[in-house]
Amino acid sequence: MFKKVLVANRGEIAVQIIRALHDMNITAVAVYSSVDKDSLFVRLADEAICIGGPQPSESYLNMAQIISAANLTGCEAIHPGYGFLSENAEFAELCETCHIKFIGPSHELISLMGDKSNAREAMKRAGVPVIPGSDGVVSTVAQAKRVAEDIGFPVLLKSAAGGGGKGIREVDDPDALQAAFEQTQQEARLSYDDEDIYVEKLIRHAKHVEMQVIADTFGNVVYLPERDCSLQRNHQKVIEESPCLLISPEERKQLGEIVANATLKLGYTNTGTYEFLMDDAHHFYFMEMNTRLQVEHTITEEVTGIELVKAQLAVAAGEKLAFSQADAAVKGHALECRLNAEDPANNFAPQPGQISQLLFPAGSLGVRIDSGVTAGSFISPFYDSMIAKLIVHLNDRDAVIAKMKRVLGELEIEGIQTNQDFLKALIGTDQFKQGTYSTSFIENDVLSDKEGFHVTESV
Amino acid sequence: MFKKVLVANRGEIAVQIIRALHDMNITAVAVYSSVDKDSLFVRLADEAICIGGPQPSESYLNMAQIISAANLTGCEAIHPGYGFLSENAEFAELCETCHIKFIGPSHELISLMGDKSNAREAMKRAGVPVIPGSDGVVSTVAQAKRVAEDIGFPVLLKSAAGGGGKGIREVDDPDALQAAFEQTQQEARLSYDDEDIYVEKLIRHAKHVEMQVIADTFGNVVYLPERDCSLQRNHQKVIEESPCLLISPEERKQLGEIVANATLKLGYTNTGTYEFLMDDAHHFYFMEMNTRLQVEHTITEEVTGIELVKAQLAVAAGEKLAFSQADAAVKGHALECRLNAEDPANNFAPQPGQISQLLFPAGSLGVRIDSGVTAGSFISPFYDSMIAKLIVHLNDRDAVIAKMKRVLGELEIEGIQTNQDFLKALIGTDQFKQGTYSTSFIENDVLSDKEGFHVTESV
Repeated sequence: MFKKVLVANRGEIAVQIIRALHDMNITAVAVYSSVDKDSLFVRLADEAICIGGPQPSESYLNMAQIISAANLTGCEAIHPGYGFLSENAEFAELCETCHIKFIGPSHELISLMGDKSNAREAMKRAGVPVIPGSDGVVSTVAQAKRVAEDIGFPVLLKSAAGGGGKGIREVDDPDALQAAFEQTQQEARLSYDDEDIYVEKLIRHAKHVEMQVIADTFGNVVYLPERDCSLQRNHQKVIEESPCLLISPEERKQLGEIVANATLKLGYTNTGTYEFLMDDAHHFYFMEMNTRLQVEHTITEEVTGIELVKAQLAVAAGEKLAFSQADAAVKGHALECRLNAEDPANNFAPQPGQISQLLFPAGSLGVRIDSGVTAGSFISPFYDSMIAKLIVHLNDRDAVIAKMKRVLGELEIEGIQTNQDFLKALIGTDQFKQGTYSTSFIENDVLSDKEGFHVTESV
Repeated sequence: MFKKVLVANRGEIAVQIIRALHDMNITAVAVYSSVDKDSLFVRLADEAICIGGPQPSESYLNMAQIISAANLTGCEAIHPGYGFLSENAEFAELCETCHIKFIGPSHELISLMGDKSNAREAMKRAGVPVIPGSDGVVSTVAQAKRVAEDIGFPVLLKSAAGGGGKGIREVDDPDALQAAFEQTQQEARLSYDDEDIYVEKLIRHAKHVEMQVIADTFGNVVYLPERDCSLQRNHQKVIEESPCLLISPEERKQLGEIVANATLKLGYTNTGTYEFLMDDAHHFYFMEMNTRLQVEHTITEEVTGIELVKAQLAVAAGEKLAFSQADAAVKGHALECRLNAEDPANNFAPQPGQISQLLFPAGSLGVRIDSGVTAGSFISPFYDSMIAKLIVHLNDRDAVIAKMKRVLGELEIEGIQTNQDFLKALIGTDQFKQGTYSTSFIENDVLSDKEGFHVTESV
């Protein structure tokens, strides 16, 4: 096992990785930006090196500085956490060149999965169901129509060069296709100077269901119980739970075997997450693969009892997985709420500032609060606004929801505005209680409420 | 279910009970002594009433005041926690008279178990193995000898009126009996003006193993996995774990069925704990029954996933147990360290004072910290010195120990002296790692070390 590992991240995930390192008797080296010098993760690390200014490009994305820090301190490996350089193939390759173990999959696979179109093709070949659509670009309305009729309406027309919501049109039936095709083509030309268009099936009322795998270098792979991450705002996950209430044990096994087989076929090692849309008929459609630890890995740790950072370190150090598929069975139910420094009443604008008072209601069966802040901490405008992950795990989902409600009620945080009441309102909705919410729930049903969404009064 | 419940306790257990009440949507009323007015449990309660001065007799043992507070606030039930009035039959009876539900067993059973000699007889009748000994008093050396030869040496000669270590003699063989008998009789006469003596088998290198039960009023009883509480100093538990490393699943089932049957025979309801000594040959000897929730119930919650305060409330409200014996199977391993405000270097003298800095290292899989204090809290000289219960629960005992070591290392508490390093030293010993430690381990092997036990250097 490694003797010394550098943590190339900040905040709660840096804290968690340092704790896992210490649990394994490994020396932990932190790197930090100038504004993070008094952070909890810096305090907990055995050594800490300032690597630059507050802008991510100056510090947490500064590859040369991070590699230097690793060399300077004699670290054998780097854990990238999530975000920042965690899915940067160039950084993973640079680590390899410098004989530092990058704790994650190979840079080739990071690179493959980073290109959405190549990832889709690779998954198709590996037997993973993808969203039906044209194989590449369609050049005429007639061609688009053939594809659409083949895969079935409704469909999306998408600019191949697009992103961020521009150059996308929903088409419900064949009659609407011609006009939509021309509009999308025009918008694509104007926005991206590229009128290439492709067709994709539109999955309405979809659930975002994802499945994490962990694989060692000996050909052992274990799939972990799925997570339902459908509660999203602006494509950001807000609340996650595991397992997904709508998925049966048979479906879990079926999906699990598909992703486990694909993982083996791809030669993928360490951890990764297959993200799917699931439609009303419980068909799964691959969206993308995250080649790193995710924020919400915590709920998977809770329902399985498997410590994932520890498993990542073991695999990276060349060890065999210490657990089998049977060990990854679902035990109970887990829920995570992301507590953010943001103002729901002001379009969720980030709320940097100092936390003057803080009471985390940890300390009862099944409550876990992962955080990188303490009373007195500053929430910096330079980084994401997540303050803590509030996690509850019990045998029974209703008891989990009741306890989370209490935890959200008991939580005291002063000095900055947070989404505490918004979270409480969300878990209080009928659709959440029933587990039937889709990815559009927050934006279509909660925030678009014409009566206004009064987060402070709705619970 | 109750709508409003009074919590007749303070500190961490009051916090835990209030949280359980809130998880169940029950209004929580706290009662507090004048020095506790700024305590966390008072802050978390929905209503709080000051019931007197800092001396326990003025407040937490003040039955009339507590009953008044319950009546004044319209509480339907009282949860007594542990300590204070929790095993006071008079209080339980007073609650009944006042039509307030006492959350615990009947006052008759509290009273029966409070008398050690009657409890022993009742257990014998209910099929629970007790420590072999004379049936009552022996009046001559010859009689003592017959009993001793019958039960086997070594034995203890004990003053019937004794207590606190006086009037007790160990006797290893028949030749030593006469002298010991006379000395004990003399000491008993001098100390208690009562020379009655009885004989009991001496259990050397014993483990303190206890088993908790919970029973409803419909004849359902569930036994919970045993706890090994052998790490004691001065008859106070210091570290507890569940399950006991030395006990097999068959032994657990056997002991469990004995206590479950006894519980039914006794007509006992709510929760209670049978405390046993276990000798080298794995014979169990009943010592006493605690007719209340115990400090260490937390590790049982962890290994079973059953919330015990919630279960107590359900049973007290006349509901059926919501779980079966199968739900109480052992899942993983749990360890609890009691963090006390005391100075190990100064004979563990209590250390009242203000906590100036506090960092509880909660927030990673399996870590739970139950506490009634926050930064700025005063540790009062009037009550027991426990600050927090540090609990770790994972699948594997070695991983639990490694994580507890890290938690103890990471914990920051300033302003008062604690037993943090002592706890770290204890879990670092070979005997702890092997799980073979007995109740005499701390006093005979750790603290009696002639080289001195340098708790701050021994890790």
